[in-house]
Amino acid sequence: MGTVTPANPTRPAAVLFPTLAVVGVGLIGGSAGLAARRRGAAGRVIGVGRHGEALEQARARGAVDDVCTDLRAAAAAADLVLFCTPVDRIAALALEAAPACRPGTLLTDAGSTKAGILAAVRGRLPAGVAFVGGHPLAGSERQGAGHADAGLFEGRLVVLTPDPDTNDNALSQVATFWQALGARTIVLGAEEHDRAVALTSHLPHLAAAAVAGLLPPELDGLTAAGFRDMTRVAAGDPELWEAIFHENRGPVLGALDRLAGRLDAFRAALAAGDRAAVCGLLAEGHAARHRLDGGA
Amino acid sequence: MGTVTPANPTRPAAVLFPTLAVVGVGLIGGSAGLAARRRGAAGRVIGVGRHGEALEQARARGAVDDVCTDLRAAAAAADLVLFCTPVDRIAALALEAAPACRPGTLLTDAGSTKAGILAAVRGRLPAGVAFVGGHPLAGSERQGAGHADAGLFEGRLVVLTPDPDTNDNALSQVATFWQALGARTIVLGAEEHDRAVALTSHLPHLAAAAVAGLLPPELDGLTAAGFRDMTRVAAGDPELWEAIFHENRGPVLGALDRLAGRLDAFRAALAAGDRAAVCGLLAEGHAARHRLDGGA
Repeated sequence: MGTVTPANPTRPAAVLFPTLAVVGVGLIGGSAGLAARRRGAAGRVIGVGRHGEALEQARARGAVDDVCTDLRAAAAAADLVLFCTPVDRIAALALEAAPACRPGTLLTDAGSTKAGILAAVRGRLPAGVAFVGGHPLAGSERQGAGHADAGLFEGRLVVLTPDPDTNDNALSQVATFWQALGARTIVLGAEEHDRAVALTSHLPHLAAAAVAGLLPPELDGLTAAGFRDMTRVAAGDPELWEAIFHENRGPVLGALDRLAGRLDAFRAALAAGDRAAVCGLLAEGHAARHRLDGGA
Repeated sequence: MGTVTPANPTRPAAVLFPTLAVVGVGLIGGSAGLAARRRGAAGRVIGVGRHGEALEQARARGAVDDVCTDLRAAAAAADLVLFCTPVDRIAALALEAAPACRPGTLLTDAGSTKAGILAAVRGRLPAGVAFVGGHPLAGSERQGAGHADAGLFEGRLVVLTPDPDTNDNALSQVATFWQALGARTIVLGAEEHDRAVALTSHLPHLAAAAVAGLLPPELDGLTAAGFRDMTRVAAGDPELWEAIFHENRGPVLGALDRLAGRLDAFRAALAAGDRAAVCGLLAEGHAARHRLDGGA
């Protein structure tokens, strides 16, 4: 990191973490590295990955200072290790990194699911190494550190899901890290988080993918803004999202059942010509949107 | 209408229709009136409606020159009558207006469904009065002539659905009207149109409304851009959309069954831990989005 410049008025006087290792330098990891460098949340950012090309893209974007394919070496040097890989690899990588860490090192992640990851690492970390689960509600259908955006977390919510045995200092330090990147933080239980995002993120993605998947190419020209908005999330990487659904399959199956029930209700009302019932179902969706748009 | 000004270079030398009556001055009707006035597609625009307040809003917005609550009087004065009311009122209003029309008057509409409207007016119009079905694939979750936008149809597609007995001149004149407003036009059979929009517009709306309707208020804060994009269309007026689903219930029920089948497939694959199958279903949605974004 260089000197404080007028272009970066939000940079604090002292860095929060001398060395941050970001494992997985895609859109989220790259954006976290870029934001941490620009805002002084980290003195130095090491990008960790298996693919030289992605790492070099992150370095070229200014998201990391150094790159490394050796997770343990990076972990040994880091004060904070942020895992931003697909969710089904986070726990294994955390367990691989932890033995190399110095006491006092914090581990955290940006995975979209939490309970499975926490269960997998619980009780298996060396003394003095803590894991705090995290999920920034930010992202995009764009992929890769080439789209990294230092403002990606600005004003967004990061859900932190500590275990009962997570010490308050570890939780507080991870919260401060995300706040330094412009985010708000809240604390939820991992299971509560997973049930919530099944409804707010995973189910919308599945429904969008299902609707998009029914579109035959000959009807592409008959789509308008509504179709495009509604299915935009389906542009997200299928493998990344499959891993999320797999990790959170209990809550996602529950949410799918609730959606099926509601679509059944629409179907029955429509088939019966029960116009008031169809209107009532639409009005419930309308009311939710109205709340989100600040109307209630 | 005033003189040609430099601010309106697209205005043709001669107006297409001396008098245009727009029946229903909401977002679509108001935008059509505004665009027709600005682009010289009509010499004079009469806004027709039941509610004085909406008519005055349209006049204040510059969408119409005159307002009128007497449909027959407006129809008698018009060369083109454009019906922009909720779809379940279009046929009855067209049949009410037609006997008052002078021979040579054209009737058309902007309804989201077509077969039912055409069937209702077929064979019931006076000699010399033609009805050409139309559907501009444009709109917004915003409502009312207060949001009227002269550019709403710019670059958009308008589907025209003539009956087999529609004369070519009538079809051509209606096409020219929409083209003067900046739209492209295509001709489809009414049933083909209705099956297509069941998949490209009505099903996405139902799915978005169903997903939005499952959101409890306490989870509002845990929604992010994906949820908001995916459910945006659900902000549309429930009564307007209920009328569309009712008019197009056959194709909509068919589309709903296809969506239910696809969600069942997701559910079965997820429950069975068949990760390749889940990924394959997501990849089909991803491919459709990629096509729409110009990637294929």
